[in-house]
Amino acid sequence: MKWKIVIHGGAGNITPERIGDREGDYREALKACILEGVAVLKKGGSALEAVVSAVKALEDNPLFNAGRGSVPNEHGIVEMDAGVMDGRTLEAGAVTMVKHIRNPVLLALKVLQESEHVLLGGEGAEEFALQHGFELVDNRYFITEERWKQYVNKFLSKNKKVVEINSLGTVGAVAVDKDGNVAAATSTGGLLFKHSGRIGDTPLIGAGTYADNEGAAVSTTGLGEFFIRTATAFQINLLHKTGTSLQKAVQQTLQQVKKLGGTGGVIAVNSKGEHVIDCVSPGIFSAVAEPSLKKIDNEFSVETYLYALELRCSTSHT
Amino acid sequence: MKWKIVIHGGAGNITPERIGDREGDYREALKACILEGVAVLKKGGSALEAVVSAVKALEDNPLFNAGRGSVPNEHGIVEMDAGVMDGRTLEAGAVTMVKHIRNPVLLALKVLQESEHVLLGGEGAEEFALQHGFELVDNRYFITEERWKQYVNKFLSKNKKVVEINSLGTVGAVAVDKDGNVAAATSTGGLLFKHSGRIGDTPLIGAGTYADNEGAAVSTTGLGEFFIRTATAFQINLLHKTGTSLQKAVQQTLQQVKKLGGTGGVIAVNSKGEHVIDCVSPGIFSAVAEPSLKKIDNEFSVETYLYALELRCSTSHT
Repeated sequence: MKWKIVIHGGAGNITPERIGDREGDYREALKACILEGVAVLKKGGSALEAVVSAVKALEDNPLFNAGRGSVPNEHGIVEMDAGVMDGRTLEAGAVTMVKHIRNPVLLALKVLQESEHVLLGGEGAEEFALQHGFELVDNRYFITEERWKQYVNKFLSKNKKVVEINSLGTVGAVAVDKDGNVAAATSTGGLLFKHSGRIGDTPLIGAGTYADNEGAAVSTTGLGEFFIRTATAFQINLLHKTGTSLQKAVQQTLQQVKKLGGTGGVIAVNSKGEHVIDCVSPGIFSAVAEPSLKKIDNEFSVETYLYALELRCSTSHT
Repeated sequence: MKWKIVIHGGAGNITPERIGDREGDYREALKACILEGVAVLKKGGSALEAVVSAVKALEDNPLFNAGRGSVPNEHGIVEMDAGVMDGRTLEAGAVTMVKHIRNPVLLALKVLQESEHVLLGGEGAEEFALQHGFELVDNRYFITEERWKQYVNKFLSKNKKVVEINSLGTVGAVAVDKDGNVAAATSTGGLLFKHSGRIGDTPLIGAGTYADNEGAAVSTTGLGEFFIRTATAFQINLLHKTGTSLQKAVQQTLQQVKKLGGTGGVIAVNSKGEHVIDCVSPGIFSAVAEPSLKKIDNEFSVETYLYALELRCSTSHT
């Protein structure tokens, strides 16, 4: 089996005009983050370890809306969500509304590994974190100067609508390892100026995150409310599991999201190593890495994609 | 179109030995609660209104683990979850980890109607409640003497395992109205002695609650973690939508739950008025109401079911 890893750093109104000279920064950041997952897979590690490593790197990078760099809610507080799922066992772990966890994806993994429960929220999740040796960090650690400016602008603006296409954000990874096991992980700060206590699709197993060896590993990004209502990640998995090609399963589900008024994107991979990156928004920060075609030991390729137009040329797969 | 409503009051280790002389109380309570939904449907109301009315009545009844009568968490505090979905529009609303909302299902409906978001949790959800005229009530309102005894016994016992078959609980309703629209609602106090902040399947659209006119309205009850991992409600809906009979869709999905080690039950109805009640546990408190076969105006029948054995004789449908 050939391993493969796909990551995203959010979908939304990503256009050359809007990104401007930060394009290089985003491509470099995506490369650096996917390499954390590649390092795991190259040495024979599991898909689960790989997606968690890549998402941890995305959380640590302030360019993306997850971990450090998360957007504040209506009260100027960062509340973060994360979810992980192991396609081999259908075991899952997720946390929501956490305010003091440096890497929410690591806490989600700990829930998967150590809790009877799948999803823990708020103070209860942070209590679980303390019980398992996590350190709590100041909420201000997560807020960068740029995010604070965005918050203040929203606060002063008359448009208090939260669910809108300009929200960039959410990070995620899906991977298949040398044993053909798939896994998915997703992490986010959610929507700028969201209502306190708002939970998006990211930590909801079946909505923003899902993985099943017999179907697909899926991670989503976009206006989470629409992904919840269409159970996007699970829908793609089940359509693929019951015979639809991975690409069609993704397209069909994203069309339902779009029909309801949603925008966003999806990354998916199956146990055969087929992958899809697709979006119903102008762009999606994303990257794919896999062993080099040249079959030289330990050589691999990394491709990055930002704009939907780039994807049109690249979404058919291995 | 003929209307129909199905409700449940929890699945689990429900046996004649365990229920004993409370059997009559449960059947009476189920009848009284389903009548609240019947009243809506008889006068031409929507499936959404009907399921919310029935679930509100179930919440108010201390026999069931939702609203008053909810089980305390590890700290002796009641934390409740509820979700509703409208199969006509795929609009949904849900709340989780609320501690002071007399009828969580009414707050979930308010989220569906008034919020940009689908799911609100904890203090943020209660802030939203206050913004919309809800009163907050003391957490002790929800805890009955019997529930407190169960909590104390658990506290003193050596078995601190939370996810076990003895957990009874969760209430829900699914309905189809005269226009062929379906809706689902579910509400719960969760699992006795659950970790603070534990979120089960109930408020997760796609896991414990889902409704789609083109598929089915589904409400689940049981060990929620397994229903999350299999996206039970959405899986049943999508299997049915893509051609599997409602009964087979339910059976197939419950078998996956069972295979993973889960127990519990499901109620489902589609826009044609077919319904299913099924469980992979010894029993499920449930009832069905529909217009009388005699076609006398305003006459209707109500049947109640408690034990899985009763269901074997009754799960094929109109």
